[in-house]
Order: sequence, then structure tokens, then C-alpha cells
Amino acid sequence: MTEQNASINGKTIALLVTDGVEQPELTEPIAAVKAAGGTAVVVSPNEKSIQAMKGDWEHADHFEVDRQLGSVTAADFDGLILPGGTLNADALRVNADAQEFVRAFFSEHKPVAAICHGPWILTEISAVAGRTLTSYGSLRTDLVNAGASWVDEAAVVDNGLVTSRNPNDLDDFNREFLKLVAQS
Amino acid sequence: MTEQNASINGKTIALLVTDGVEQPELTEPIAAVKAAGGTAVVVSPNEKSIQAMKGDWEHADHFEVDRQLGSVTAADFDGLILPGGTLNADALRVNADAQEFVRAFFSEHKPVAAICHGPWILTEISAVAGRTLTSYGSLRTDLVNAGASWVDEAAVVDNGLVTSRNPNDLDDFNREFLKLVAQS
Repeated sequence: MTEQNASINGKTIALLVTDGVEQPELTEPIAAVKAAGGTAVVVSPNEKSIQAMKGDWEHADHFEVDRQLGSVTAADFDGLILPGGTLNADALRVNADAQEFVRAFFSEHKPVAAICHGPWILTEISAVAGRTLTSYGSLRTDLVNAGASWVDEAAVVDNGLVTSRNPNDLDDFNREFLKLVAQS
Repeated sequence: MTEQNASINGKTIALLVTDGVEQPELTEPIAAVKAAGGTAVVVSPNEKSIQAMKGDWEHADHFEVDRQLGSVTAADFDGLILPGGTLNADALRVNADAQEFVRAFFSEHKPVAAICHGPWILTEISAVAGRTLTSYGSLRTDLVNAGASWVDEAAVVDNGLVTSRNPNDLDDFNREFLKLVAQS
């Protein structure tokens, strides 16, 4: 993976997460960002740590929060990753600070990547209408009703937004996102 | 509660659930149905049992499945309850048998009640457009985008459908549903 991915030396990427994040959708993008020469920053409404899940069901590891949501803005970063996990994504979508944080990446034309249930928050900030994207299958109707064209592909890139379906797509997801960050 | 609720003597109510159902949204409606003289039947894609959650996070009790989804139809019942729980509702909404089962209650004009995350499946079967309803707050955008008028009330009744927001609304939820079943 390291050889194939674009270099993002000196760039800083935010991962917005809370309790219930799907563990590999947090750890694998972090590893890919670091391997590409970038810095990965875990941003959360939680002050100190979050608890990940595996398969949305098994309580998995705790991860340190690097920066609390509200203390950072999109201006501090070169791109944003929105991991999935049903409980994580269901909680973040209704968090006003999270909505504002994500919206600013779109306003500033910085790359955003959302996987699995991660794209839910995009329906709250009008970032979906007119785009082609993918997600975990259960979000399909929500995204289509929000104005998206939904496709069943491993990684979809549309105007600065990368989306993927589930943890099996992580290699494609990371590659396409890093490519966008390298170009931006 | 027993005294206030309408009698549904001899009527049979299905509760459609899978793993991750929010425990009180299963147990309290079952208790209310029984106290009103009805029979409560747990229907699930699982063959033998389901595991409930508390607060969407804590693994709670296991409950026996009375009838497996696919072996029953709406014709076997006088009404349907869709409990919440994020993981339960996220799984059921993409289950084609679950969609077909729920759709038939609307076709046969039998009362349906959905609480918390339970209403998600209604967006998959075109049962939302033109209705006034409520839900857990995170579904608001999904339901509005599917054509609903969303209101923040304990129990909303619209043309045979009762909806509520969360476990705190259960008394109102049960009362309004039992009233509809008693009248039907």
C-alpha cells in the first residue's frame, strides 16, 4: 500500500469520530495517512478517548482523542476522513459542531472521504444533492432522497468527495483520498 | 397503564425485531399488549432468539423469537409494532422480507406503530410521503427527505400510523397504538 499511494508529506488530515466508530475504518486510514508522510489527527466531541466497535457489535479498543471538536476548524487541516460505524455516524450527524466542522471542508474545497455509514452527516449539510456517491447499503435510500446518484462501487470520487461502502473497500478508499490530498 | 389503555381482547400484534433492538421498546409494548388482553408475537429474521441492547450500547437480554420472518404475513395479525434500537432498525430496513412484511400492514390498513429508529424501514416502502410523524432526532432529515412532515411530539397518529421519539414516550406510544387496534 505504501508504494502505491500518493505522498502527502507535510499535510494534516482530520478523522472525525465518536464512540462506536468501526475500528478498521479508523485505524487503516490513519496508517495510510502516516505511510504517505502525512499527520493524522483524531477529532471528536469526546474530550479524552473514544471506544471503537468491530462489526458494529463487539466493543473493541479505546483510542485517544487528539483534538476536541470545537477547538479546531477546517482551516487547521488539508482534508477530512469520516469513518463509519452505525452508532458513531448516527451520533455525529445530529451534532451541530460536527455539521459545522464538516461543512467548512466543502466550503474551503478541501478533500473529504466518507465510508460505510459515514456519509449520513453529508445529508445534514446539503453536500449530497447532485453528487454521485456510494455508502453502506442501508444509507442508499437516505442519500438518494437527499438528491444523490447512488452507485455500488468500491470507491467513488466526485468533485472532492471520496465515498466507499464498507471495510473491504479501505485500500481503494485510502488510495483515492490520498490522491486527492496530494493534488490539492 | 392497564386501566387507561383500550382493550384489544382476542387481537394479535406482531413486533418485528432483530439483534440490537432497544430493550424497553420491545418489553414495554409487549407488556401493554398483554395487559390490554391481546397476544404479542415476536417476529424476526433470526430463527431462535435475538439480543437486545440498552441505550444502543450495553448488550442486554436475549429474547425468544416466536415466529420467523418469512413464515408469517400481515394477514396473521391485527397490528404491527416496530421497536427501535439503531442496529436493529439499520438491519431491518434493508431486509427484503421485512420490507414486504411491513408493507402489507399498510396495504391491509392495519395499525402500525414505530418508535425511535423504528421508522427508518418506512422510507424503504414509500409509507412516509405526505404523513405527519416523529422519530428519534437523527432520522428527521431522512424522513423529511422521504416526504414526511416531522414534528417533535411524544406520539403522533396519522392515518393508522403511530410514531414516537424514544423510550420516554412509551406510555403515549402504547396508548395510541392500542386505541387504534381497538377501533380497527
